[in-house]
Amino acid sequence: MARGTTPTRAPGRPRSSVDAEVFAATLSTVHELGYTRATVDRIAAAAGVAKTTIYRRWPSKGALITACLVDAFGPLPLKEGDSRAEIMATAIRYAAAKIGEPGIAAAFAGVFTDAIGDPGLREILSTQLQDPYRTVLQDALDEPEHRVLFFIDVVIGTLLHRMGMTGEPMVPTDVDALVEMILRELG
Amino acid sequence: MARGTTPTRAPGRPRSSVDAEVFAATLSTVHELGYTRATVDRIAAAAGVAKTTIYRRWPSKGALITACLVDAFGPLPLKEGDSRAEIMATAIRYAAAKIGEPGIAAAFAGVFTDAIGDPGLREILSTQLQDPYRTVLQDALDEPEHRVLFFIDVVIGTLLHRMGMTGEPMVPTDVDALVEMILRELG
Repeated sequence: MARGTTPTRAPGRPRSSVDAEVFAATLSTVHELGYTRATVDRIAAAAGVAKTTIYRRWPSKGALITACLVDAFGPLPLKEGDSRAEIMATAIRYAAAKIGEPGIAAAFAGVFTDAIGDPGLREILSTQLQDPYRTVLQDALDEPEHRVLFFIDVVIGTLLHRMGMTGEPMVPTDVDALVEMILRELG
Repeated sequence: MARGTTPTRAPGRPRSSVDAEVFAATLSTVHELGYTRATVDRIAAAAGVAKTTIYRRWPSKGALITACLVDAFGPLPLKEGDSRAEIMATAIRYAAAKIGEPGIAAAFAGVFTDAIGDPGLREILSTQLQDPYRTVLQDALDEPEHRVLFFIDVVIGTLLHRMGMTGEPMVPTDVDALVEMILRELG
């Protein structure tokens, strides 16, 4: 799209299709080059779109990466009638599988790195990425907000630390240990 | 110091003093500018040393940040005669306090971000930062390596995730919950 066009969409190219292309390009670029070198310029080139197309949708690299993570994680695969323990175990195993996908852990660690000094990005991360899971889990587990936030810190933090230290997803026996520890804590 | 000098030390300026200045400058620069913008150039300027002085000691920014974290964390304050539970509780509370100090979480998250795509840096992180604690804890807790690595993932990962999401250290009641959960897991 040309620079300076209005934010209406070009015919035949609905927003969702551009988003999907940009998200795929974002993850592959972060996976290949690392978060720091995965600039919006490079991501736009990999997606075959203009940089302005990206900035029209997401005001910063951090906002783009967060949106990409929201899209990649998607809704928790919870089933009607699951017990609290089943819900929690499903959520942990789902998070472990997602964090092992190419580019996800690098994008996550990178956006945290930027967020530590950027309150606006923390707000985006918290409201757009964490809150949807937090509210679903508060409701499904019948737990207060501070307990669900604690569980999210433990699960996501543990999985990301393992990826950061080893470059590999957590092995299944350790994911089992994490599930058991959290289920004991859930009570 | 001039470019191209041999790595012997200038008289009156022992290595430990330069290291201390560089480490202090590293943390304050990372705290102020964030990991990405805290380049070796800026860190050298803040420390009042030549960039070559830094590269003579640490071959890369990741190696410098890791050495800085090793220095900042220091030895665990374990006491003779502590029980396994006391040792673990001390280690967790010590980690929580350290990760709350200015620049530490930002440096940690940043080095992970770089390490995810850099096997050499992961090796440095693992051997220089993690292994000293791992071996002390394996011995003090009489636990196998994989269990101690799991505990480290949970404790450090949880504390860093909280810092990344909120920009604040974990509140004392949540650190208590973390200690209790881990002590139950330790058995």
